[in-house]
Amino acid sequence: MKSQISSRMAHHFHLIRQATLRLVDPLQTEDFTIQASENVSPTKWHLAHTTWFFETFVLTKYLSYYRVFKSNYDYLFNSYYESVGPFHSRENRGLLTRPTVEEIYSYRSYVDHHMMILLGSNHEEIKDIEALVEIGLNHEQQHQELILTDIKFNFYQNPLLPVYKETIDRTPHAPATDEMIPFRGGLVEIGTSDSTRFSFDNERPRHKVWLEPFKLAAHPVTNKEYIAFIEDGGYENPSYWLSDGWATVKRESWRAPLYWREQWGKWMIYTLSGEQPLKLEEPVCHVSFYEADAFARWKGKRLPTEAEWEHAAEPVKVEGNFADHGYAHPRCHSSENEQLKKIYGDVWEWTQTPYTPYPRSKPLDGALGEYNAKFMCNQMVLRGGSCATPLSHIRPTYRNFFQPETRWQFSGLRLAEDAE
Amino acid sequence: MKSQISSRMAHHFHLIRQATLRLVDPLQTEDFTIQASENVSPTKWHLAHTTWFFETFVLTKYLSYYRVFKSNYDYLFNSYYESVGPFHSRENRGLLTRPTVEEIYSYRSYVDHHMMILLGSNHEEIKDIEALVEIGLNHEQQHQELILTDIKFNFYQNPLLPVYKETIDRTPHAPATDEMIPFRGGLVEIGTSDSTRFSFDNERPRHKVWLEPFKLAAHPVTNKEYIAFIEDGGYENPSYWLSDGWATVKRESWRAPLYWREQWGKWMIYTLSGEQPLKLEEPVCHVSFYEADAFARWKGKRLPTEAEWEHAAEPVKVEGNFADHGYAHPRCHSSENEQLKKIYGDVWEWTQTPYTPYPRSKPLDGALGEYNAKFMCNQMVLRGGSCATPLSHIRPTYRNFFQPETRWQFSGLRLAEDAE
Amino acid sequence: MKSQISSRMAHHFHLIRQATLRLVDPLQTEDFTIQASENVSPTKWHLAHTTWFFETFVLTKYLSYYRVFKSNYDYLFNSYYESVGPFHSRENRGLLTRPTVEEIYSYRSYVDHHMMILLGSNHEEIKDIEALVEIGLNHEQQHQELILTDIKFNFYQNPLLPVYKETIDRTPHAPATDEMIPFRGGLVEIGTSDSTRFSFDNERPRHKVWLEPFKLAAHPVTNKEYIAFIEDGGYENPSYWLSDGWATVKRESWRAPLYWREQWGKWMIYTLSGEQPLKLEEPVCHVSFYEADAFARWKGKRLPTEAEWEHAAEPVKVEGNFADHGYAHPRCHSSENEQLKKIYGDVWEWTQTPYTPYPRSKPLDGALGEYNAKFMCNQMVLRGGSCATPLSHIRPTYRNFFQPETRWQFSGLRLAEDAE
Amino acid sequence: MKSQISSRMAHHFHLIRQATLRLVDPLQTEDFTIQASENVSPTKWHLAHTTWFFETFVLTKYLSYYRVFKSNYDYLFNSYYESVGPFHSRENRGLLTRPTVEEIYSYRSYVDHHMMILLGSNHEEIKDIEALVEIGLNHEQQHQELILTDIKFNFYQNPLLPVYKETIDRTPHAPATDEMIPFRGGLVEIGTSDSTRFSFDNERPRHKVWLEPFKLAAHPVTNKEYIAFIEDGGYENPSYWLSDGWATVKRESWRAPLYWREQWGKWMIYTLSGEQPLKLEEPVCHVSFYEADAFARWKGKRLPTEAEWEHAAEPVKVEGNFADHGYAHPRCHSSENEQLKKIYGDVWEWTQTPYTPYPRSKPLDGALGEYNAKFMCNQMVLRGGSCATPLSHIRPTYRNFFQPETRWQFSGLRLAEDAE
Repeated sequence: MKSQISSRMAHHFHLIRQATLRLVDPLQTEDFTIQASENVSPTKWHLAHTTWFFETFVLTKYLSYYRVFKSNYDYLFNSYYESVGPFHSRENRGLLTRPTVEEIYSYRSYVDHHMMILLGSNHEEIKDIEALVEIGLNHEQQHQELILTDIKFNFYQNPLLPVYKETIDRTPHAPATDEMIPFRGGLVEIGTSDSTRFSFDNERPRHKVWLEPFKLAAHPVTNKEYIAFIEDGGYENPSYWLSDGWATVKRESWRAPLYWREQWGKWMIYTLSGEQPLKLEEPVCHVSFYEADAFARWKGKRLPTEAEWEHAAEPVKVEGNFADHGYAHPRCHSSENEQLKKIYGDVWEWTQTPYTPYPRSKPLDGALGEYNAKFMCNQMVLRGGSCATPLSHIRPTYRNFFQPETRWQFSGLRLAEDAE
Repeated sequence: MKSQISSRMAHHFHLIRQATLRLVDPLQTEDFTIQASENVSPTKWHLAHTTWFFETFVLTKYLSYYRVFKSNYDYLFNSYYESVGPFHSRENRGLLTRPTVEEIYSYRSYVDHHMMILLGSNHEEIKDIEALVEIGLNHEQQHQELILTDIKFNFYQNPLLPVYKETIDRTPHAPATDEMIPFRGGLVEIGTSDSTRFSFDNERPRHKVWLEPFKLAAHPVTNKEYIAFIEDGGYENPSYWLSDGWATVKRESWRAPLYWREQWGKWMIYTLSGEQPLKLEEPVCHVSFYEADAFARWKGKRLPTEAEWEHAAEPVKVEGNFADHGYAHPRCHSSENEQLKKIYGDVWEWTQTPYTPYPRSKPLDGALGEYNAKFMCNQMVLRGGSCATPLSHIRPTYRNFFQPETRWQFSGLRLAEDAE
Repeated sequence: MKSQISSRMAHHFHLIRQATLRLVDPLQTEDFTIQASENVSPTKWHLAHTTWFFETFVLTKYLSYYRVFKSNYDYLFNSYYESVGPFHSRENRGLLTRPTVEEIYSYRSYVDHHMMILLGSNHEEIKDIEALVEIGLNHEQQHQELILTDIKFNFYQNPLLPVYKETIDRTPHAPATDEMIPFRGGLVEIGTSDSTRFSFDNERPRHKVWLEPFKLAAHPVTNKEYIAFIEDGGYENPSYWLSDGWATVKRESWRAPLYWREQWGKWMIYTLSGEQPLKLEEPVCHVSFYEADAFARWKGKRLPTEAEWEHAAEPVKVEGNFADHGYAHPRCHSSENEQLKKIYGDVWEWTQTPYTPYPRSKPLDGALGEYNAKFMCNQMVLRGGSCATPLSHIRPTYRNFFQPETRWQFSGLRLAEDAE
Repeated sequence: MKSQISSRMAHHFHLIRQATLRLVDPLQTEDFTIQASENVSPTKWHLAHTTWFFETFVLTKYLSYYRVFKSNYDYLFNSYYESVGPFHSRENRGLLTRPTVEEIYSYRSYVDHHMMILLGSNHEEIKDIEALVEIGLNHEQQHQELILTDIKFNFYQNPLLPVYKETIDRTPHAPATDEMIPFRGGLVEIGTSDSTRFSFDNERPRHKVWLEPFKLAAHPVTNKEYIAFIEDGGYENPSYWLSDGWATVKRESWRAPLYWREQWGKWMIYTLSGEQPLKLEEPVCHVSFYEADAFARWKGKRLPTEAEWEHAAEPVKVEGNFADHGYAHPRCHSSENEQLKKIYGDVWEWTQTPYTPYPRSKPLDGALGEYNAKFMCNQMVLRGGSCATPLSHIRPTYRNFFQPETRWQFSGLRLAEDAE
């Protein structure tokens, strides 16, 4: 019986690890090494770090005869786990030309091989192992998303604007509407205490929240609406902006979302398929929290809280434009059955809620307690996944979080407002 | 009838404006001009800016024949009101030797004189005027606190460690205890919708919040307890710290609270009465949110949320060690009747709650809408007032807020924990 | 006999020390404290530092019973003499509100009093003392110039553009000419080994230099000529600029000399008498070496070397528009008898020569060896004195030096070119 | 006849271009892309930029039918020629993963092919072409040196300390001596006006300089001597340092030359063959001008001027440890016949002379005038070539130049002193 579960896990492990490699298939060797800002990491580093995660938290602990692949990888590929030991500085990840891409592929093979052995064994702590592997695979999926967003950002620094992969979206379009969907609120519950399905410690426990009646937009905000904001002087008028946001607009000379460029009076957008004319019916993407918040204020509305978002999204089936479709760009609106269109996939939706621990939440024990808890400051919650997120990674209670000025994720917004 | 109200307001106005001048009495002319960091402002600037506030928001609007004192003061002494017009950059306030201190005293007299006339008149919009004056006086009180904290910070840059004013605390000490006071929680209300008493827009409206049962420490954390944290390696162990906090500790080489210095094995603390030996029974002060949070984690406890704090403090009478006593330093613990000792005064208490708008809150109209709302990002809420706050300025619903790394305010902490 | 010399020296001492105080007469107390950039120092600091110089290098060494005025002044007012002991950081001089201006005046009186006693005594080392006092007075004169340039820079940060002193130049103007004066060159000598007249160690010894035939402009470059450079796109065309200069132009967004402002199509210039319309016949002033060098290249000429300058200027009598005249601004050209007009006074003239030690030069012994020698890197030589220099401070061999990007001194230029 | 000369030039071209490729043979694809500081460039960029040089200054001008390889390479691979057009920012060269290494090899082949055609043709302007090719090949040799120094610097950022190439020096050692060689000086000549041999514009024209009698050390300073400086507190004592140098020591926490590391009480040095125990008889290397100057002052001596150096070195035959030997590290002293040992090769020798134009020097016409002239500020002259310089690139009049704080070149020093 145990071995069956394990082999299911082994299969799962194999599939997700392979998916990572498929993502980097279109790259040239040179593309794996650079790091264009401290926010992003080299592709090579992502490949190695996710592997180090299994080596460190699973193999060295549960596979008695296991010997680490290279002793210095622990220093190079630990991301931020202080309790594991010292690590290479984040801002210098792009200076490592060695180990080479080939050596890191060998590292992955070596670790995968031993993971398969471990998952196929009748290990007496197999429950603990599986719990860790589950975390490791969710971790791997987070890095799959980062591989895409980081390649996009790295490529964008190159005046040649390289193409990662040519893809075309052939779904029929439909215009977005202004419709606002009402919710009654009251004393509701969000988060999860479900022990039968994986969730991160930051989503737990399920807990009560009081919500006043509110409305949520049926559609995420589109490029068309966002251009109206730009054309109305949105980036020149401080009255729409938080103070820190306005300081950022001026310091960074923001005039439009990241990856946008005006050329001969027309907006172009850089995508993983190269630079393209902007499609008006696409959800706006690569905006910071500051821009999302300013847009909402301009519109006379506001961003939803994360509790409002989760309460509204919980009954909706998790499906949509995810990384699995391989398009890696938000799709234009089209007809859907759900009231809340595109609530999952396409773009992460900024909420107005700072990222803090849920009442009575408990971080994981040991080093993995550093996974989420220590970042609970100066970041805002985003919800719903994006076109770069693997579908199986997302659930209604899933909390993503980034600093309010970050724009390189596929981040957009959905409006909310108070109801009677 | 109106004139009576007005004359009460005029009296109130007079008292608070005078209190500001009493604060700067011990200073030399040279002391009014400098600005040792972007966080602080020159004393002279505080004197002028609070005056500009009345000139801009009251006199030019309601006193028909009023002529501004100097036309360029609007540029120099507007702090951050984008909708009023362009303003001098915050970081260069310390470069203005002119207008001189004497000229700014004249400015104050001129504006006060006209305010007295206005408040004594039978103006038909007296209700609106009084509402604005109330804001202006609360604003003045906030700057009274800043005058003290900023002088302290400015003086501290001088190797001579100047004394602002010699004061001695003669209250008898009593040791702090570890006692934790339990609260049942449930669906409680915080904030205020009371239209009969002044409150800032950020405290409104009164609204429901669900609280799980919790406990709050009877005493704020003392220097003695904090030294135990230091001696246990608190500043060397990343596991107690938020990630941003740890980065700050390393970047700033923090080893103790601001104003502390170890000399021949003993801790000294710089106070407005000069450098003094540290008293162990005093509430710890001049710690950042990061330090407060790390201390709590080291102690196996946590910071309270602002809702927990307000719910617990609401029944307690607002009294304690405030600026009115002229001591300008937190006092050692002493015997008090209340369960929650020193919940008001002495030190602002960091909460674990980021500063965000209350549900359905509405910023004030016009430029005064910029007073609070635009700072609702990247800041944490503090509660209860300090030894530098005027007593009449504080109420249970009062929300103070600062960036998590700031330490120059009189900021300390009180521990909380979950209860059954 | 000795006492006569001494009393001459005492008189000299008194005059120069008094001249410093006369310079600061027009200031308000507030003006003495600030420091608008690391390049400048507060007026108060100049008053104290020059006093510290006599206390440290003369009184504590030669007046046996002398007790320093305040023990911590040594730390506060040592500028950069590492061998004297640790000192307050240069960039924080503007944060010292104490000692007050009054206390520093007392410090000056105290030191002057003891200096008078010492200079009036029959001290057996009176020769050594006089040599040190001579250095100290030359040092004081350098700070007299800096007091003016630093006040100007500090005041300029204030949008009120304060006036230091109203002065008017009534000398009749005469247009400058393009005339170039030829010199034959050959094996010439520059510098001085004269032991009967004071000179700094950096001017010594007299030594041979080979010069090719050259020409030197009869006039320093005027505002009129410089405007032609601006209007010809001088600040937009990298081909005129040194690489470091061009980087500075772009980084600092330079479009004109420091203190210039275009207003409604006319150039204004900030002077110590406030902002004024620019006079075309004035020597251009407040240009960096980079700008002087770029202008010369645009003109198809070059800057002189310091050897060329000194060789040409040596026969000319030292007179012109110096600080003694109290105008503190370069004067328009007028008729003069000399071939080389305004070679002394008005504006320091940038040379193309980096500041390095003369062959076989020897720095002074002890701490005073730090006076000049350690700055002989990354600086360019300027010659001839300015309208802010005391006349008695200048001689043909005098070498001034500043970093090539500095502009807050009264610095201009005179063109040179190769001759047959 | 012309074609013979051309074919000699073609052969020369071929040899030098091939030498570049041999240098990068030991590298992995990943190694070509990164840039660890603004001072260095990616290997790939060097390969492309040197190629762009021939394309831009020769082929597009003289080969009528030539079409550039890729139109955007002009933007990517122009280093700093403002008059050629806009260019990619230097600090972002390490962010270009495309064009790939393979594409840049194609670029080289393409340009080499056309160059061979041009050099083999009977072009009527062949003289001009050859002059440009000569510059281009000297330029290529400069970048050969930079390829080595930049790889070394890039690799050094990697905690794995990768090996570029294993090499061993088997020459027998001999201890260095303290001997100082005297020179009489007088009115000497330096520089060159020789039109029959290539030289850069910055070496021209030959001109007179007056030299006082001086002595030059027989040997460059060794590691052994430099360790004595370190152990005597050289890096802790400001009295040896120029003011800017001391500021650099403190800011950068310098304790030893670049690439040195103390491990268990022994000095190790990172070389292109990996980290090695330091050899005491090797010339000290990777010191800045500031360190060279401080060492000389500590030793009671000084650095030579560039005129002294050239005058002394001129009669010595140009041979020594150059890049041609493939060792790429300074060799220990050994017995040599010359009085001035290792005056060529091994390490560049810092002089005390700032890099300025020679009297009556003329920069090249057009864009190539930017090659040298615009860097003549804030840099110091180095002489003699290093173990990373191609032998054929060096001559007695050759002037190298770097900012005084730079250390990543193979830079050392030779002492000088005044003689009777």
